[in-house]
Amino acid sequence: MSSASVLKEHWARGEPVFGGWAALPCAFGAELMCVPGVDYVCIDQQHGLVEYADMVAMLRAIEGRGVVPVTRVPANVPWIIGKALDAGAQGVVVPMVNNGEEAAAAVAACRYAPKGIRSFGPVRASMVMDTRDISVVGDGVLCFVMVETREAVERIDEIASTPGLDGIYVGPADLALGLGLPPNLDKEEPEHVAAVEKILKACQRHGVVAGIQCGSGKSARKYAERGFGFVTFAKDSNLIPSAMDREVAAARQGASADNVKERGYA
Amino acid sequence: MSSASVLKEHWARGEPVFGGWAALPCAFGAELMCVPGVDYVCIDQQHGLVEYADMVAMLRAIEGRGVVPVTRVPANVPWIIGKALDAGAQGVVVPMVNNGEEAAAAVAACRYAPKGIRSFGPVRASMVMDTRDISVVGDGVLCFVMVETREAVERIDEIASTPGLDGIYVGPADLALGLGLPPNLDKEEPEHVAAVEKILKACQRHGVVAGIQCGSGKSARKYAERGFGFVTFAKDSNLIPSAMDREVAAARQGASADNVKERGYA
Amino acid sequence: MSSASVLKEHWARGEPVFGGWAALPCAFGAELMCVPGVDYVCIDQQHGLVEYADMVAMLRAIEGRGVVPVTRVPANVPWIIGKALDAGAQGVVVPMVNNGEEAAAAVAACRYAPKGIRSFGPVRASMVMDTRDISVVGDGVLCFVMVETREAVERIDEIASTPGLDGIYVGPADLALGLGLPPNLDKEEPEHVAAVEKILKACQRHGVVAGIQCGSGKSARKYAERGFGFVTFAKDSNLIPSAMDREVAAARQGASADNVKERGYA
Amino acid sequence: MSSASVLKEHWARGEPVFGGWAALPCAFGAELMCVPGVDYVCIDQQHGLVEYADMVAMLRAIEGRGVVPVTRVPANVPWIIGKALDAGAQGVVVPMVNNGEEAAAAVAACRYAPKGIRSFGPVRASMVMDTRDISVVGDGVLCFVMVETREAVERIDEIASTPGLDGIYVGPADLALGLGLPPNLDKEEPEHVAAVEKILKACQRHGVVAGIQCGSGKSARKYAERGFGFVTFAKDSNLIPSAMDREVAAARQGASADNVKERGYA
Amino acid sequence: MSSASVLKEHWARGEPVFGGWAALPCAFGAELMCVPGVDYVCIDQQHGLVEYADMVAMLRAIEGRGVVPVTRVPANVPWIIGKALDAGAQGVVVPMVNNGEEAAAAVAACRYAPKGIRSFGPVRASMVMDTRDISVVGDGVLCFVMVETREAVERIDEIASTPGLDGIYVGPADLALGLGLPPNLDKEEPEHVAAVEKILKACQRHGVVAGIQCGSGKSARKYAERGFGFVTFAKDSNLIPSAMDREVAAARQGASADNVKERGYA
Amino acid sequence: MSSASVLKEHWARGEPVFGGWAALPCAFGAELMCVPGVDYVCIDQQHGLVEYADMVAMLRAIEGRGVVPVTRVPANVPWIIGKALDAGAQGVVVPMVNNGEEAAAAVAACRYAPKGIRSFGPVRASMVMDTRDISVVGDGVLCFVMVETREAVERIDEIASTPGLDGIYVGPADLALGLGLPPNLDKEEPEHVAAVEKILKACQRHGVVAGIQCGSGKSARKYAERGFGFVTFAKDSNLIPSAMDREVAAARQGASADNVKERGYA
Repeated sequence: MSSASVLKEHWARGEPVFGGWAALPCAFGAELMCVPGVDYVCIDQQHGLVEYADMVAMLRAIEGRGVVPVTRVPANVPWIIGKALDAGAQGVVVPMVNNGEEAAAAVAACRYAPKGIRSFGPVRASMVMDTRDISVVGDGVLCFVMVETREAVERIDEIASTPGLDGIYVGPADLALGLGLPPNLDKEEPEHVAAVEKILKACQRHGVVAGIQCGSGKSARKYAERGFGFVTFAKDSNLIPSAMDREVAAARQGASADNVKERGYA
Repeated sequence: MSSASVLKEHWARGEPVFGGWAALPCAFGAELMCVPGVDYVCIDQQHGLVEYADMVAMLRAIEGRGVVPVTRVPANVPWIIGKALDAGAQGVVVPMVNNGEEAAAAVAACRYAPKGIRSFGPVRASMVMDTRDISVVGDGVLCFVMVETREAVERIDEIASTPGLDGIYVGPADLALGLGLPPNLDKEEPEHVAAVEKILKACQRHGVVAGIQCGSGKSARKYAERGFGFVTFAKDSNLIPSAMDREVAAARQGASADNVKERGYA
Repeated sequence: MSSASVLKEHWARGEPVFGGWAALPCAFGAELMCVPGVDYVCIDQQHGLVEYADMVAMLRAIEGRGVVPVTRVPANVPWIIGKALDAGAQGVVVPMVNNGEEAAAAVAACRYAPKGIRSFGPVRASMVMDTRDISVVGDGVLCFVMVETREAVERIDEIASTPGLDGIYVGPADLALGLGLPPNLDKEEPEHVAAVEKILKACQRHGVVAGIQCGSGKSARKYAERGFGFVTFAKDSNLIPSAMDREVAAARQGASADNVKERGYA
Repeated sequence: MSSASVLKEHWARGEPVFGGWAALPCAFGAELMCVPGVDYVCIDQQHGLVEYADMVAMLRAIEGRGVVPVTRVPANVPWIIGKALDAGAQGVVVPMVNNGEEAAAAVAACRYAPKGIRSFGPVRASMVMDTRDISVVGDGVLCFVMVETREAVERIDEIASTPGLDGIYVGPADLALGLGLPPNLDKEEPEHVAAVEKILKACQRHGVVAGIQCGSGKSARKYAERGFGFVTFAKDSNLIPSAMDREVAAARQGASADNVKERGYA
Repeated sequence: MSSASVLKEHWARGEPVFGGWAALPCAFGAELMCVPGVDYVCIDQQHGLVEYADMVAMLRAIEGRGVVPVTRVPANVPWIIGKALDAGAQGVVVPMVNNGEEAAAAVAACRYAPKGIRSFGPVRASMVMDTRDISVVGDGVLCFVMVETREAVERIDEIASTPGLDGIYVGPADLALGLGLPPNLDKEEPEHVAAVEKILKACQRHGVVAGIQCGSGKSARKYAERGFGFVTFAKDSNLIPSAMDREVAAARQGASADNVKERGYA
Repeated sequence: MSSASVLKEHWARGEPVFGGWAALPCAFGAELMCVPGVDYVCIDQQHGLVEYADMVAMLRAIEGRGVVPVTRVPANVPWIIGKALDAGAQGVVVPMVNNGEEAAAAVAACRYAPKGIRSFGPVRASMVMDTRDISVVGDGVLCFVMVETREAVERIDEIASTPGLDGIYVGPADLALGLGLPPNLDKEEPEHVAAVEKILKACQRHGVVAGIQCGSGKSARKYAERGFGFVTFAKDSNLIPSAMDREVAAARQGASADNVKERGYA
């Protein structure tokens, strides 16, 4: 099943969900990420090389493997959010949300009147959701906003308490930049750790899911144990060069140690 | 430098070259494979989900990283070989070649008259090769034929002695099927090992490069040490699910061992 | 002829024009809609699975059949409107316009200085329009704004009287949501009928064309008879499943009535 | 379930399967065809405007709706058949097969050694089929050959008795041309009816499924009742213009009967 | 009008037609070539970076400008020829035809039974041709074969006398290679001139049109004056770099002559 | 080398750089523009028929030829600017900037915190830039704003003095419209010349590079001599039809002068 409700059921049971991040504009790559144990794949329209047509193709690929497809939209823009949901995304991750007003705008872009301002036209979503009840199409989709600036951390309660919001997703790299730190994942500087903790606590206080981008399965496990419920543990554009680095090192290990002529083929 | 001559220089020095195999129809994926130490990337038009337009985009991506792009054509068909070379592929790997006549046809498809039958029109190759001397465009590109059937192994000398041939590439999976074995890589059954050894020896006897598809860097090293000169150590469509499997296991390791409630987020 | 002027001539003679709605990102699908009697096809960039490159391909397909191509842009954003017109769209349908100011912004995005703010660069439009007179390229294209919210109905006179506006297009589904009704077409609830009538009368009062989305040719005829001049009678993404439903029922009719074995083939 | 085995189970129970024909290079169009009651959709790479990359996208779309995707390959060429199956097609329909030798070649292109000559590399098929048993990937896919020439009808027994063949698909239009008749579907000329009957009888005699292209659900039902088991009742590239014709007639019906001014909108 | 009959009318009046050659896989580029005076544009699927989907898009673009679209297929393969014609190409140029048998095969691939072996399914051609008379769809399309080898020149009468053939197109570069000369256009070596003259005379003797690839309008005029009727005077992939060379020289002319500081901007 | 630093080095030496403008959505067309002497190619996402996926492919093509790729974004929108830079564009040209505030917003969209608001994720830029130092990725890319309205000319000092701005690019056509003149390039009306001069002087005063769109190499040279440092001398969508016009005239010259029968081919 590839419906957002699958994730919600996990959360209702207090279980985290784990997922992959897809930056390659490639439906085949997306379906290859859907190994057993992967709950969702998030299609990155912001920093990934993915545009709308790619996303639509990737939605089908991920659905087909029984994994829940969501997408990071490039910005908090209503028509972009609506068009992703119309295509069948089960949720959106909205970047660079700095305050309650912006969070409310993100939610409104996901919901139909009178709750929001989404224009009606679930042209493909109607295939993958139950549209007999419009509230399923409108309210059923997930709305996560990203907290990744100093301002957003300061106003975290106003964001986390936004009606209709499903969760908050931490962007560790941008948050680091905002705190004057190098922009990477799995950060351990005290001020970064404190900011992330503050976000997590606010989510728990307001009953929304906390999510975060991690650099490895090992790191993802730690965050899940701390209480994060929507945990990304891998990104395709990192997996490929990392795996290639590892394998090429194994292939050439002898080359660097031995005399080249000895392992020559002729 | 992404010219075939780079590979030839390695071979002239008795050094093997190592490369990746690209089955994803994705230029970004292809360039992500081009980490330091990778000599070539082979774009798989036979079993990969890659068609001609994808290949052209992937050629640019691989060239841009200073890696030599070659392509496995889907079949031993002159116009397909010519069109790949016209687009700038530095060489072709031609599957399912069973005898000397088929090997000669593959070579002829790569070379211009009077050596071969390739039609002249290096529309993009002229950008990435030195076309002042037509022999560079025609003769400079690599022609590997695949030996992967029982018949081909039996007629290996007739294949390996084909004038103008650059090398022979072993397809271990199809070869296994031909020998009545399961179709995987890095095989250790004696009859398979013997067949591969026979191919290698024939290559050495006739002065052409031996190549082979391997399932890992570790395996690639072994084949290089045995004398293979064109050694593929990784394939993108395997790297992604393998890496996902490993990371998701790390993420969930605790989940299976611990009580779910304990690591719950709410 | 596929110029906007063809539609204007019909309107000048008091005749309605009828058209199709294209949600499939498919130039072949678009040209298949262009049967005799179809005056325009509107390419839906808002709720359709159509992105810019698809739209460009569809413009060519529709032009080629002598039908007028227009496009619903995804939002009231100047650069999106300009880029659609630069590609050769003969007009835009701008969604979710709520008041006179927004209507004026939509018109301004279509017209060059001093009438508007459109940036000059009709890179493909110059092929399909007469660009010797810049007013043709700028003023000749159609600007329809959609009225589909409660607020817009209330402020209909301020919208309809916008200088340079060609017409108003009713979005019955969103309008229904705004009125607290189910979001479908061909609606008969009195408050919906009244709102549509109010829009029509405002169009007639201010001399702009009234348009509307209908669910069938039969319904389209009714609206045309009431005075609508720009009437969409069919949408590709509905036609296909409807026709499939009808044909599969015919194919299986016996199956449900008879014993399966009786109609078995073996 | 979108596996070929679903169709085989119907046939084992003596039930026909009904399907659609997809000529639009459009994954969205393909999934819109998958209404309840549709057993398969055949992606037409021969006469449709569909190329390989389109087919791959359409496979995902059809699978996602629980319908079985098969494809008509453009010709009886081993690498084209293999590449379609590697991508996950559940079967191929091979056009223009004229005799037993050609039928055997089509079957061989679908099966692995020792039964056939298919090269091993089910790069995406391994996702949608059970590849633990190679006989599933190789033997599980359907191989239909088209009988559509005078010669093929004459040699029908030699074709129908080809080991490993799943069925024969009648191409009524080409068959008509071969008989000197106009090339359309649902034909009633005695010589055409006789030829089709001859094919059907041969299929029944040799225990393979008979299939046929029909122009409507009504016609499909007739053929199913006669004993055809693989019955195509609709083609997207016909459905769209037919539906448009019907709806535009409804929209304009009054126009032709009434005075234009009376139904004018202004 | 973009029908093949337009070209035939010119030829019937003894007039040559002039055209462009499109190697860029770009519909916009193709339509930009369609300036007044251009009779046809030939889409190059052999040496151009054009694949089938590109060709279909380019057909629409060229048709839309009232120019006749034809295509050079990559090889003399029936299904490729048929699929190009089904998409609406008004004719094919078939490369590397060496004798009468191959010429007859090319013609047969264009015509329906009983004249040829083309499979019926003019899925898009039926939009751009009059299909009420099947002879128009089948016989109306142009079949040119390329003579570009020594063997073909020797057997020119057997080729030129092929029933149903519309013309012969000279490939000067490949012909040069076959004669041991450098592969370029507008060649003046006596043996090349003699071979071309021999081809021209054979065409005139057998009443088919002679065509040729030229490197400039000036050269095209000369060939037209000599009696060639189907004359390509420009190729997009040459026009762009040539024009860039010319303009950049004009831009930098001063730079090379003057002191850089004098024309510096700061 | 295709890094922005190459252009900066020219400017540091007081030398202008010359480039081409790419409006065709075609990577092959883009690389064909990269002849010797071309310093940059600007991919036009505003008025060109280019969308994001095209731009990414074109970046690779231009990089591969050692030319610096920049892009004109369609509008001054942060996420669009960031996504172009993440893909590896070496700079952006931001259209329709009217005042200092808008110029500052354009710069902020290019730079990371604390200098700007760009979100971190150089997914492909990290391949083509040195990302060990984040300031290279962020500050190294070029930010040009376009001055092309009457208001912008009036507020030129406030724009030119924007911290972090690299230069100002004149859009002569839109500027002409704003001045009530016809929208073309290489303009000589005194008020236009004066406005351009005013912009140039402001650039020199504030130490930023002045750029301009020219219609030919000859014109480009004049502007470079006046002090412009970033000078576009050609646009692909103009080069093709211009070259075709010239060549077709040469081909037909005789035709218009002579009797058609005389130059007939038969």
